[in-house]
Amino acid sequence: MRLGAGLLRGAGSLFRPPAPARPRALVYERHGEPADVLQLKDLELGELGGSEVHVKMLAAPINPSDINMIQGTYALLSDLPAVGGNEGVGEVIEVGSHVTSLRPGDWVIPGDAGLEENPSNQMLYQSYPCKSAVPKHSSSDGAEAELYISHEAADRVDGTWRTDAVFTEEKLVKLPGDIPVLCAATLSVNPCTAYRMLCDFETLGPGESVIQNAANSGVGQAVIQIAGAMGIKTINVIRDRPDLQKLVDRLTALGADYVITEEMLRKPEMKELFKKVPKPRLALNCVGGKSATEMLRLLQHKGTMVTYGGMAKQPVTAPVSALIFKDLKLRGFWMTQWKKDQAHNKDRLTGMIQTLCDLIRKGQLSAPACTEIPLKDYQIAIEASMKPFISAKQILVM
Amino acid sequence: MRLGAGLLRGAGSLFRPPAPARPRALVYERHGEPADVLQLKDLELGELGGSEVHVKMLAAPINPSDINMIQGTYALLSDLPAVGGNEGVGEVIEVGSHVTSLRPGDWVIPGDAGLEENPSNQMLYQSYPCKSAVPKHSSSDGAEAELYISHEAADRVDGTWRTDAVFTEEKLVKLPGDIPVLCAATLSVNPCTAYRMLCDFETLGPGESVIQNAANSGVGQAVIQIAGAMGIKTINVIRDRPDLQKLVDRLTALGADYVITEEMLRKPEMKELFKKVPKPRLALNCVGGKSATEMLRLLQHKGTMVTYGGMAKQPVTAPVSALIFKDLKLRGFWMTQWKKDQAHNKDRLTGMIQTLCDLIRKGQLSAPACTEIPLKDYQIAIEASMKPFISAKQILVM
Repeated sequence: MRLGAGLLRGAGSLFRPPAPARPRALVYERHGEPADVLQLKDLELGELGGSEVHVKMLAAPINPSDINMIQGTYALLSDLPAVGGNEGVGEVIEVGSHVTSLRPGDWVIPGDAGLEENPSNQMLYQSYPCKSAVPKHSSSDGAEAELYISHEAADRVDGTWRTDAVFTEEKLVKLPGDIPVLCAATLSVNPCTAYRMLCDFETLGPGESVIQNAANSGVGQAVIQIAGAMGIKTINVIRDRPDLQKLVDRLTALGADYVITEEMLRKPEMKELFKKVPKPRLALNCVGGKSATEMLRLLQHKGTMVTYGGMAKQPVTAPVSALIFKDLKLRGFWMTQWKKDQAHNKDRLTGMIQTLCDLIRKGQLSAPACTEIPLKDYQIAIEASMKPFISAKQILVM
Repeated sequence: MRLGAGLLRGAGSLFRPPAPARPRALVYERHGEPADVLQLKDLELGELGGSEVHVKMLAAPINPSDINMIQGTYALLSDLPAVGGNEGVGEVIEVGSHVTSLRPGDWVIPGDAGLEENPSNQMLYQSYPCKSAVPKHSSSDGAEAELYISHEAADRVDGTWRTDAVFTEEKLVKLPGDIPVLCAATLSVNPCTAYRMLCDFETLGPGESVIQNAANSGVGQAVIQIAGAMGIKTINVIRDRPDLQKLVDRLTALGADYVITEEMLRKPEMKELFKKVPKPRLALNCVGGKSATEMLRLLQHKGTMVTYGGMAKQPVTAPVSALIFKDLKLRGFWMTQWKKDQAHNKDRLTGMIQTLCDLIRKGQLSAPACTEIPLKDYQIAIEASMKPFISAKQILVM
C-alpha cells in the first residue's frame, strides 16, 4: 500500500465529543527490550491549563529510533517512566482559554520537544543505526504504577503511543485537514528529514542529481518523491536481495530515476550512468562504511555528503585527498536537532509542513507502505517493526 | 633559528642592475626521484612583453608537495619539462611598458597559477601526505635540452627554483619591503594556509580554542603564532620522540598554549585540560587516521575539522554518530584551490598577505626554522628535505 489509505478525517469530527474511553498509553518504566518493558496503562488527565491543548491521538508510527530509545541505546533518552513513540497525528479535543491558534477538530502533530542527552556519552562514538526521531521527556517519577500527567509535567510527557495527550499550544503544529491520516502520522520525521537534506546543504536545480543509499528506507522513499517534485534526478542505491526487481519496480514507480545495488556502485560501469545524468553534488548516507566511501567517489568536486544514519554500523571514511583536493564536505543531519535549533522560529517548521502537505495533495508524496495495528495489539506491531528487511511501517491506531 | 635572519633587502637594491650571471633553473624533464631527475640548466630569457615582469628570485623553499610533484604523485602536475618549486620571493628587475603596479626593486611573490589535474584520477582517492602548494605549468616541449622561456609561455613556466623568471603582472603579489627574506619566501603557502583555516571555517573569538595535530609542521607553527595573535588558545598535538621536551619548549616559545602527544590525546586525563580551556570548535588535521578521529572526539558540538594533509597515509574516519548527533562538519582545505577560486578577487589575497606581513613586523609571526643552501648545491637541500622528522625547512638561495 503506497498511499495512506487508512482513516480519513471524518467530516463531523469537529463536533465529536471527547472519546469516553479511559485514556491509555504505552509506558515503559525501565529500559530494555520493548516486548518486555512496554505496558499499556491507564492515564489520568487533569484539568486543562490555559495554554494547553487536549489532543486525541489518531495514529502513530513505530520508528527504529523509538525502539532504540526504549532499549536505552539512543543518543537521547526520556526520563522514566516514559510513553513510547515520537511521531504521530492527533485531533484537538479541547483547548485552554488562552489558546488562539487551534480549535477542536484541528489535526496536529507534536512540533518539538525538550532534549536530554544520553548520559552514556559514549553513544556519540558508536556507529548508529537509527534514523532521526523526535525524542521527548517524560515524568521523572519512576515510582508511580499508574502514569499521572500533571499539567506541570505535561510538556515533558510527550510520547505519541497513547490515546490522549496534553500539549502546550506552542508545541503543536497544525496540519491541513485534507491529507490521509497515514501521511499525517508519518510526516514529521522522514519526509521532513528528506526535505531538509535536499534543501539545506546544496542548492540543486532541475536536472541536477542526488545519490542516496538505503533508498528504500522511509527517508529514501521521501527523497525520491520530493526530489522528483523538484526536478532533481535521483540515483538510488539499495542492497541486493532475492526480490530485487520487485523493489526496483516499486522505487521506480515512486519516481526513482536510477536504482542500483551496492555492488554496482563499485563497478566501472557507473561511468555509463554518468553519460546520462550529471554527477551528483549531494549524497545522502544512511549506511556508512564502504557504501558511504563509494558515494564520495562519485560526488562532484565541492559536493556534500550528508549522513543521517549508519545501518552498516561502520563509520564514515573519507580519503584525505577527497577532502583536500576534491573539497568534499561531510556533514550530518538530525531532524531532532534541526527542530530544536528552530525552536524560536516555528514559521520554518510550519512552512515546511505546508510545502510537504501540498506535495501530498498533488499526489507527489505518499506515505510509506504501512500496516495499521490497534494500540491494544502493540506487541504484534513492535515485533513486526523489529524484523530485518521490513518493507512496511507499523502504525499504531488509537 | 626562529626568525628569518637571512638576507635582508638591501637599501640600494632599487638601483641594482640585473645580475649579469646567466639565468638558470632546476629543471626536470620526467617524473622520478628528485635527486635523479633534477638538473640545473641555463635559461634563455627573451624580450620582455608589455605586461610582463622580469623577476630575479631571491629565495625559494623546498616543500613536501614540490617533491611529490617531481615524483609525479601529487594531485596536480606540471607539463614537462618543468621548473621545480612553487613558492618563493623575488625582486623585480624590469617591468614591461604596460605594467603599472610594480617597479624595479619591489619584492614579489607569485600569486596564483594555472592548474592541471593529475591525469591519474586515482590520486584523489589515496591518502595524501603533502601539504598545500601552488603547482604551476611549464613549457610542454619535452624535446628541448635547454629550457627556453618564450614570452608566450612565460605564464606557464612558473617554478620558483630558478634565478630569473618572467611573470605577467597580474600573477604577482607585491610584498612590503621590510620583512626578512626568509619570511617572504615562506609566506604564501604555510602561513596563508594557517590563516585561511583559522578564519574561514569557524568564527573564533579570543579565549576560544583550536586543536591541531602535526603542530610542528610549517602550517602548525604558523597556526600557533597567528592564533596567538588573535587571542585564540592552541592545543597542539605532536608525535612522541626522543627529544620531546625540546620540541615542546620550541613550540611553547612560539606561543603554543598546550602541547600534548598523540598518546596523551587518547587518555582520560584530557578532561583536566578542558577545565582550563574551552573545548575546541575547530580542529586542523594534517595527519588523518586515529589522530583525526581522536580530535573529532574532543570537538564541541557543531564544530569543524579541516583536513589539509594526511601524513599518516590513512583516511579520515568519523563515527556516524559524531556527524548526526554532534553535527560535526568535516572539511578540507587546499591553498592552491583557494587561490584559484579567488583568481578574480586578488584583493582578498593581497589583503591576507598584508595582514600576515603586519604580524611579521610586530614579531608575532616568524619564518620556520630554515637552512639556506645555494641553488647550485640543490642536491644537498633536496636530500635534507626528504629526511623524516626534519625540523628545518630547506631554502634555496639564488
